[in-house]
Amino acid sequence: MKKGTDRFYPSWRESPPEERSYRSIFKWGSPNIYKHPNAKLYSLLKSRFDLNDSHFINRQNEGDEKVSLRSKINLKKKQIDHFKKIAGKENVSTEEYDRLKYSTGKTTEEALMLRHGIKDRVSDLVIHPRSKNDIIKILQYCRRERIPVYPYGAGSSVNFGIRPSRGGISLVMSTHMNRVLEINEINQTATVEAGIGGPQFEETLNNAPAKFNTKLQYTCGHFPQSFEFSTVGGWISALGSGQMSTYYGDASDMVISQEYITPSGIIKTHNYPAAATGPDIDSILIGSEGAFGILVEATLKIYRYMPQNRRRFSFMFPSWENAASACREISQAQFGFPALFRLSDPEETDVALKLYNVEGTILDSLINLKGYKPMERCLLIGSTEGEDSFSGNVKNQIKKVCKKFKGIYMTGYPVKKWEHGRYTDPYMREDLLDYGIIIDTLETSVTWDKLDSVHKGVRDFIKGETDAICMSHCSHFYMQGTNLYFIIIMKETSISDYRKFLYGIVDQIVKKGGSLSHHHGIGKMLAPWMEKYIGKEQMGILRTIKKHLDPKNIMNPGGQLGLDLPGRLQRKL
Amino acid sequence: MKKGTDRFYPSWRESPPEERSYRSIFKWGSPNIYKHPNAKLYSLLKSRFDLNDSHFINRQNEGDEKVSLRSKINLKKKQIDHFKKIAGKENVSTEEYDRLKYSTGKTTEEALMLRHGIKDRVSDLVIHPRSKNDIIKILQYCRRERIPVYPYGAGSSVNFGIRPSRGGISLVMSTHMNRVLEINEINQTATVEAGIGGPQFEETLNNAPAKFNTKLQYTCGHFPQSFEFSTVGGWISALGSGQMSTYYGDASDMVISQEYITPSGIIKTHNYPAAATGPDIDSILIGSEGAFGILVEATLKIYRYMPQNRRRFSFMFPSWENAASACREISQAQFGFPALFRLSDPEETDVALKLYNVEGTILDSLINLKGYKPMERCLLIGSTEGEDSFSGNVKNQIKKVCKKFKGIYMTGYPVKKWEHGRYTDPYMREDLLDYGIIIDTLETSVTWDKLDSVHKGVRDFIKGETDAICMSHCSHFYMQGTNLYFIIIMKETSISDYRKFLYGIVDQIVKKGGSLSHHHGIGKMLAPWMEKYIGKEQMGILRTIKKHLDPKNIMNPGGQLGLDLPGRLQRKL
Repeated sequence: MKKGTDRFYPSWRESPPEERSYRSIFKWGSPNIYKHPNAKLYSLLKSRFDLNDSHFINRQNEGDEKVSLRSKINLKKKQIDHFKKIAGKENVSTEEYDRLKYSTGKTTEEALMLRHGIKDRVSDLVIHPRSKNDIIKILQYCRRERIPVYPYGAGSSVNFGIRPSRGGISLVMSTHMNRVLEINEINQTATVEAGIGGPQFEETLNNAPAKFNTKLQYTCGHFPQSFEFSTVGGWISALGSGQMSTYYGDASDMVISQEYITPSGIIKTHNYPAAATGPDIDSILIGSEGAFGILVEATLKIYRYMPQNRRRFSFMFPSWENAASACREISQAQFGFPALFRLSDPEETDVALKLYNVEGTILDSLINLKGYKPMERCLLIGSTEGEDSFSGNVKNQIKKVCKKFKGIYMTGYPVKKWEHGRYTDPYMREDLLDYGIIIDTLETSVTWDKLDSVHKGVRDFIKGETDAICMSHCSHFYMQGTNLYFIIIMKETSISDYRKFLYGIVDQIVKKGGSLSHHHGIGKMLAPWMEKYIGKEQMGILRTIKKHLDPKNIMNPGGQLGLDLPGRLQRKL
Repeated sequence: MKKGTDRFYPSWRESPPEERSYRSIFKWGSPNIYKHPNAKLYSLLKSRFDLNDSHFINRQNEGDEKVSLRSKINLKKKQIDHFKKIAGKENVSTEEYDRLKYSTGKTTEEALMLRHGIKDRVSDLVIHPRSKNDIIKILQYCRRERIPVYPYGAGSSVNFGIRPSRGGISLVMSTHMNRVLEINEINQTATVEAGIGGPQFEETLNNAPAKFNTKLQYTCGHFPQSFEFSTVGGWISALGSGQMSTYYGDASDMVISQEYITPSGIIKTHNYPAAATGPDIDSILIGSEGAFGILVEATLKIYRYMPQNRRRFSFMFPSWENAASACREISQAQFGFPALFRLSDPEETDVALKLYNVEGTILDSLINLKGYKPMERCLLIGSTEGEDSFSGNVKNQIKKVCKKFKGIYMTGYPVKKWEHGRYTDPYMREDLLDYGIIIDTLETSVTWDKLDSVHKGVRDFIKGETDAICMSHCSHFYMQGTNLYFIIIMKETSISDYRKFLYGIVDQIVKKGGSLSHHHGIGKMLAPWMEKYIGKEQMGILRTIKKHLDPKNIMNPGGQLGLDLPGRLQRKL
């Protein structure tokens, strides 16, 4: 019961996971932080899934058991001793808990597995390298001994990208290799070790005057939802996009130069802002998801930190068509781009009005009065960044365009509500799964002319298969198109049925003309589609580079990017 | 004598080259168009090179002889017949003139050679393919027969990029494969055949409402100095940058998708504006300079055509230091970028004031009155593009920054003068060489912290070696740096001495921290530096891709990008 009301409200869990338990591995984020579905969402879940309060009395499969593995370590003592000699014995672990923890990402399938005590693929050894030199020695030795290596940043992969399909070593980059090495204020760049976490990087940039004696404060401009549990190395390796990418660009746009250690040698690129010196080596390495080598350092663009110039805005449109047209016009009009820019489809809009507590406010009355109907109307929220006059003008121009497409100005209030929850929404996953409800996400990118067919195709499939809530939004905009991000809430099924369902969604995305991923990456989850999707010839190029840099296939082997996925495991479309 | 004056002025050539002559090959641009050095420049040349009027009476080595080659064709009749069967006999030429013409680019060395009757490397056969299908068959046959293939766009390469080092075939892309295939107004993209020329492409986009039934007019945004004699395929293959790249981006930024025919197969990439599906295949192919395959089609970003929103501006700064600081501030301030943006160093500024006829005007009096001295003061010119309020605001903000760094506003007048000559300056090369004076250019990119060292290093070298006029400017700006473009005017030397001199400049660029090229590309001219410059490991990656796509090394072999350059020909630094 919720205090002070007589209506039932589930007793969502508020105790941290048991130490060294499965839950401590699959729970999102910090052990002591929670975000519970609010009363309106709870009420929606019950009605949509035809559940009553009694379903929400007893939590299930919470995973508080201590981790215990039955798999033995497939490395010789001599090999383990050698790794200890390289990296220091305090940085090498054979503990079962560590091995499972650093083998596990944040897919729903992994959470379901651990809740049911299934441990599928686990590394043999965990190493926390201290330096580039450690990594050089580790890779040389692993190449000689044919030991697989799986890089691990902060563990928020949602595509089995860090899953050690063939055992071997999990290489944890964030433990030691997490420093800002240099801020070059003249060039406006920062050089970091790849294991640095988002918050540490941003905090250092915001405080650069004190920490690096710069004149100005800076920002990294990259704020994915996983920000707090992600590393710069992860951003670059899996081609991430932040929530403000429409202005700041995607992670790949921010890379000025990099250093990789591969089984075949060290690659350190130049830091020119542009050059005409053959195919861009940086682009050949960005997005290689640990399959070519280990990213150890990167020099990134940084931006002036000017939060005082931010303008927030939100608009309600009568229809998806109007809203999407306004967003396309804004993306093509050439007055500069907003930073946060997020368009919710009708179903997400209705949930958002509940989650942001807009329901029952004067804004709610306004849109109802205008006749903007539930399951038709669409909410657009956003904010601008940059120099003051630029930022102000972008907001003004957006207002003009939105008005033209019948967007009602809804103030900055919904944006502030969104900002408040921007990193905490994933915490709801554990609450829901404690009561047998799955919340999961899938995403794609589209050109403008494919936006509707992909949106409709995926929704039709989901609604045809399940009674799921399916919320969609576009949150990364380009002149030529945008992304589509699907949030699915549904009743728990068996793991195999759930996987089959997800596969069906990915089939739809690709069939209707979406990309295989906009910013989650491929990992091993989407690998079965990869060759058909990018084409045999293109896959041949990637495999050729892979073979050159990693001839013994020790770097993230067993499906990553589809590079070594046998034909029988490839998806037929 | 110039009419109406009693001062001597050379009789610059105004007759077109003889038909099928060497001059018709090496002359820049259209046969009937000229741009003569004006009286002020002529006077400067005389005084700087200690020449008197008598030197400018007789033109030398004009190259009007009919082309005649002594090299025989190294292809069998059977092979030539086969090519005729593939592409139609009217599209296959063994004529000596054609073979030389399509083997020749626009380097100074090539002009000097042809003026002295030296024909170094000439293809055996010229083919003008009509379609992708022709090219597929040509490459299959060439792979089987091991015949080299050299793609030719519009011939304005300045790095021996189209030179047929090993004979074989010159494949002329611009004769037939030059259409705009589609304008997708929803996505704001255009799909073109790679042989389309800049003016045809731009003209089609400007007239898209009439030609493609679009609502709006568009622009390609890419205007290199070679615009009139360049192809979209060339822009992409050699990583070009236009004069408005600071706003529109470089050619590589404009590519959405592409189709290549390689000896190993056809590669057609997806047209998503962004995706997280492994390393970007487009970037692996862009900049491959014809060494991986033939680019046959590309889908490019296009932009709304809004010339009415353009704002012009120019400023005079008291010093290079002030001017460069202002430009860096403008590039990093985050109010959006200007389109044209060009900062001249002190020596170029002084020449520009002569060329743009600012000398003697009220603007000239103003800067002299302020005490801004010759060989210290620096001229910045530019213009803004985009939506009206954006464009206006960028100009306003630029004014504020320039004022802070003591820039005197010089109106839009110098910009208009520059625009007038934007594509015609290269025509002066023939005038000068007719009297034994070389004008040539070299360029590089730099991070901001290397701008001064590269600028000074190159100037010191040039001034130490010669009495050359050396004008430098920055004309492509990024948050992290800019380019440096050097224009050298000097007395003609032997070809070997001249090459030695150019090599010395490139050595300086690289030693002082500049890139090997910002937008001219590598070709075969800069190939000797390539491996040392990008690094052995990076070169290994490019060679691996090359071998995969072109296992018999038939695509632009003989040095292109340094891929197959033997160690003994590599430059030691």
